[in-house]
Amino acid sequence: MKDLHEMSSRARSAFYTVSVASHEKRNEALSALAGLLSAEKEQVFEANRADLEAASAENLAAPLLHRLAFGEEKLNQVIRGLQALCGLPDPINRTLCSTELADSLKLYRVSCPIGVIGVIFESRPDALIQISSLCIKSGNAVLLKGGREALKTNQVLCGLVRKALEQAELPADTAQLLESREDVAQMLKEDTLIDLIIPRGSNSFVRYIMDNSRIPVLGHSDGICHVYIDRDADPGTAVKIALDSKVQNVSVCNAMETLLVHRDIAPSFLPEIAARYSAANVEVRGDAEVQALIPCVPATESDWSSEYLDYIVSVRIVSSLREAVEHINRFGSHHTDCIVTKDAAAASEFMNSVDSAGVYWNVSTRFADGFVYGLGAEVGIATGKLHARGPMGLEGLTTYKYKLIGSGQTMKEVKDGSVVYTHRPLSENCPY
Amino acid sequence: MKDLHEMSSRARSAFYTVSVASHEKRNEALSALAGLLSAEKEQVFEANRADLEAASAENLAAPLLHRLAFGEEKLNQVIRGLQALCGLPDPINRTLCSTELADSLKLYRVSCPIGVIGVIFESRPDALIQISSLCIKSGNAVLLKGGREALKTNQVLCGLVRKALEQAELPADTAQLLESREDVAQMLKEDTLIDLIIPRGSNSFVRYIMDNSRIPVLGHSDGICHVYIDRDADPGTAVKIALDSKVQNVSVCNAMETLLVHRDIAPSFLPEIAARYSAANVEVRGDAEVQALIPCVPATESDWSSEYLDYIVSVRIVSSLREAVEHINRFGSHHTDCIVTKDAAAASEFMNSVDSAGVYWNVSTRFADGFVYGLGAEVGIATGKLHARGPMGLEGLTTYKYKLIGSGQTMKEVKDGSVVYTHRPLSENCPY
Repeated sequence: MKDLHEMSSRARSAFYTVSVASHEKRNEALSALAGLLSAEKEQVFEANRADLEAASAENLAAPLLHRLAFGEEKLNQVIRGLQALCGLPDPINRTLCSTELADSLKLYRVSCPIGVIGVIFESRPDALIQISSLCIKSGNAVLLKGGREALKTNQVLCGLVRKALEQAELPADTAQLLESREDVAQMLKEDTLIDLIIPRGSNSFVRYIMDNSRIPVLGHSDGICHVYIDRDADPGTAVKIALDSKVQNVSVCNAMETLLVHRDIAPSFLPEIAARYSAANVEVRGDAEVQALIPCVPATESDWSSEYLDYIVSVRIVSSLREAVEHINRFGSHHTDCIVTKDAAAASEFMNSVDSAGVYWNVSTRFADGFVYGLGAEVGIATGKLHARGPMGLEGLTTYKYKLIGSGQTMKEVKDGSVVYTHRPLSENCPY
Repeated sequence: MKDLHEMSSRARSAFYTVSVASHEKRNEALSALAGLLSAEKEQVFEANRADLEAASAENLAAPLLHRLAFGEEKLNQVIRGLQALCGLPDPINRTLCSTELADSLKLYRVSCPIGVIGVIFESRPDALIQISSLCIKSGNAVLLKGGREALKTNQVLCGLVRKALEQAELPADTAQLLESREDVAQMLKEDTLIDLIIPRGSNSFVRYIMDNSRIPVLGHSDGICHVYIDRDADPGTAVKIALDSKVQNVSVCNAMETLLVHRDIAPSFLPEIAARYSAANVEVRGDAEVQALIPCVPATESDWSSEYLDYIVSVRIVSSLREAVEHINRFGSHHTDCIVTKDAAAASEFMNSVDSAGVYWNVSTRFADGFVYGLGAEVGIATGKLHARGPMGLEGLTTYKYKLIGSGQTMKEVKDGSVVYTHRPLSENCPY
């Protein structure tokens, strides 16, 4: 077990250095990392082979083995990602707004890093590089805990990240690796040193973190996404989206779990989509009305709150858009929900009334992703509403501070009238 | 004891209505409230007299009685505040950014309300009107818990808020009053219905809330603010700011608690400020070096972490700007800290290195306030780093959602190359 208080203290101290390092220095570390990954790739592959062998011996399922594998192709992807990240503008030191408060008294809101961030992620070792590079780019320090199965690969990768930081004359402790569940439990206690925890994992895992730490958590809960086929849906679009949202990849959080269908369109739409689902081996669980129209398994109340992540879809008939919205707000997970319709007024009402991070009109729920949104790589998808909502990229790793620059003003002078507020909007960058 | 599950459910349901009400409707409720306060003022004053009498009978301290009083002057202030709030632009339904993701596929990030917000505030009854009006303006529903001493006044005021909502044809349950500590304890359990808790109160109270709820908390901890007198400070400015930051109002969170002085300037500066503090009845607690220069009480380690909120200041001599920054980052509460200097490079280093919501150059710490910053009224001052930092106004009561508007796009078409990402920045408002 590691000494997490000591590690967190070192991370905090590294943060104070990396947060004020120039954009060039931070990019230099990312370039150095790309170079090291290329130069030391055999070392990475060897560690990954050891992890894969151990995982095979433990009879890990094939999809998990696939995610664990880190070969030439993943390596090249990761290197390209680092190069792209270097090219992005600096997310910190941006002036977000500026106001003249009084004569010779200017207020600037300026973006800055958050501090020390703990990230707990799944078995993919490439996630370690993505997360640590996003944190370095944005001037944060990071404590990383990857999947147990990937430990050897992660040790090598984190070693390279630390070496790259040193090559750029930044503190190696900007990135540190945790190795066990006990380490995580200890980390959760360091609320005076750690500013944010980002857990990527199951819903129950995120709950565990929230219940056991005072550190703010930006988490991801279930992805119970819906597609609602409105009365005025174009039939072809309805089938395309209901199919793609379900089957294009069933095991991801932005896949649809529940299909809602307006009563008026159900008799024509349901047989069509049922045939397509049947061809794709999707099990349909329908309410009583659905059962009367197509062959299906009867749905129970618990189906509406289930994230299947599998070739299963629950289907319910609703009598109005309002009923669809109420169902989604009640049973959904506020992730991503779509309406298929030709009626702009209905689409507008749906998008404004559904209380989710993503509200879609005539497009597959599978588009809910930071890369797709053009945010660059994502650190995670937030289903909460505070700070960051939906796919969270570099911007989610920043906060802001107010820089107030005066010439000796006091509150006494405001009270006696010799300093007078002007509150004049400026549009200038903070020069300091 | 109230049924908080029932109240929270009704708040949630009210949120779904008020969140999609037009800006005009929301402003109409605020205007109606201003009218009702004026028309029903005798009822308010009478309830307040009863609260004041009960408080006097309990021997409440004079400053508390002063805060509890709600007379003609407070009423007019509150009414002017409501009128000003009506004039502010709509904080929701603003398009924050827009991108073309592919041909006929547009992404809009649009501001929207957070949902149901629980606010626990101190004895001032005018806070009830401020908080509920900010929530109505931003389309949120609110559960309000004020000070025990103000209960009768708050009951009348919350009744008027609910009446105003009804006059604007909005649900009265957009604003509901909690009456006891047990109500608060019950509210903390409703994490599926309440989106955010804003506790205004002592540090230990905020901790209690955080430790007893899964609901996200935007809180305010101590205000341990510093002024650092640099080697190159202008002597007159140094004295003005060190005095104003301490004595202009000692009982507020943005008052200075610790004064750091560069060793080179201490021999000339300290006797001067000591004389001013002495004239203002401020007790100086100094470290060993300070004790050698001016008469003072010896400071102990615990002084550096103390929020006195009183006529007491701790003073320490540092050998460099770096040492000042380290002291502030270690002992401060990340609220507001100031450097006094003529050296722009030193000011820049200070403002970038100090990890606080407000970093000031040559201006009193007393300026850390939402009204001063031009944010309109404030719901609170956040000392955390996520979502909102520093004074939190209307914007802090909003989040955003992504509206994605397509024409039938599927992820399958992305994979087979028939839908191609363009990621072209747009600058248009979401029309839906």
